[in-house]
Amino acid sequence: MKLYHCQGARSFRPLWALEELQIPYELEIMPFPPRFRHEGYMDINPLGTVPTLVDGDQVLTESVAICHYLADRTADTPLAVRAEEADYGRYLNALYQSDATLTFPQTLFLRYRVFEKDRGLTQAGDDYVQWFFSRLKGAAAMLGDREYVAADRFTVADICVGYALKLAAQLELGTFPPNIAAYWARLQERDGYRRALVRENSKGG
Amino acid sequence: MKLYHCQGARSFRPLWALEELQIPYELEIMPFPPRFRHEGYMDINPLGTVPTLVDGDQVLTESVAICHYLADRTADTPLAVRAEEADYGRYLNALYQSDATLTFPQTLFLRYRVFEKDRGLTQAGDDYVQWFFSRLKGAAAMLGDREYVAADRFTVADICVGYALKLAAQLELGTFPPNIAAYWARLQERDGYRRALVRENSKGG
Repeated sequence: MKLYHCQGARSFRPLWALEELQIPYELEIMPFPPRFRHEGYMDINPLGTVPTLVDGDQVLTESVAICHYLADRTADTPLAVRAEEADYGRYLNALYQSDATLTFPQTLFLRYRVFEKDRGLTQAGDDYVQWFFSRLKGAAAMLGDREYVAADRFTVADICVGYALKLAAQLELGTFPPNIAAYWARLQERDGYRRALVRENSKGG
Repeated sequence: MKLYHCQGARSFRPLWALEELQIPYELEIMPFPPRFRHEGYMDINPLGTVPTLVDGDQVLTESVAICHYLADRTADTPLAVRAEEADYGRYLNALYQSDATLTFPQTLFLRYRVFEKDRGLTQAGDDYVQWFFSRLKGAAAMLGDREYVAADRFTVADICVGYALKLAAQLELGTFPPNIAAYWARLQERDGYRRALVRENSKGG
């Protein structure tokens, strides 16, 4: 099991999941963007995106798919919600929501407000910050007073939503609704999260 | 099981899945955008987005999560790939990729090139058409000469990727790589796809 990772990228999700699940893994830390700066990367991942997980003949390139996969391939872990469980719908919804709805808009901010800020398209970045907070308000209503997003326990869905909050906090996009702020504080207290942060800043291997 | 749907929206994915899985369902067809035009919708789905699936106490708002859920909650259907199967990683990756990587960029085109074209941000729409085709090229390499995205059979992952292609074709974004064009032609020949198209244009109920 080998994870290709860049510091600060969405590959933090599978890194955190690997640490929580205590699966042995090899970590390749690459300079960003690897499609230009890590020779041969396009042969491993033809999209050139980060992360990539290679597990035998299975090559996964979507950060949330990898977390989902790792949890389902781990026997008896409480970090997966199984299809038979009552909260399976909530679990799946949070997993998909974490990237398509809560992370993608932030990449617009990063592109037009940070990396390409001189192109005259900063308003598009601002539009998607507003869009993010509108969706986050909906996600907050769905979380309510629950401790975790599904099944009354910490799962990989919390890792995936948690990364979206980590990114928003780093980018200083604005203030979270109170229950989301408390949820994010709770996630950061986990040993697995702290181990992933240490590993993120290591030399890999 | 009740699906809230708008014509042309991502809710076509679960509609198609329901038809393929032959699950009995109720369909509520709403005017767009339902958060302003369908009274009480925000009480059902606090994000105000489309679709929503209500199944008992489970409320799902992500189109791909709903397809994934429906397949996993259907006994013995070949449309789900199970965690024990060899291609489970490919299956999950295609599911997540279909929305976060292949649909979201198209919404940028729709916003800045179509609905809000007078705001001076058309370049952002064009940027994400380019981004879409770059990712689609990667997805084409991952598909290769396979007939379906995973497990050598038609699954809900094909429905979810198929919708991204349907949208790109409708928006006339450009020419698909040859294997993607052949794949999309294959999907459109399905009875389940045709039934969903008929239902999409019905009055609901």
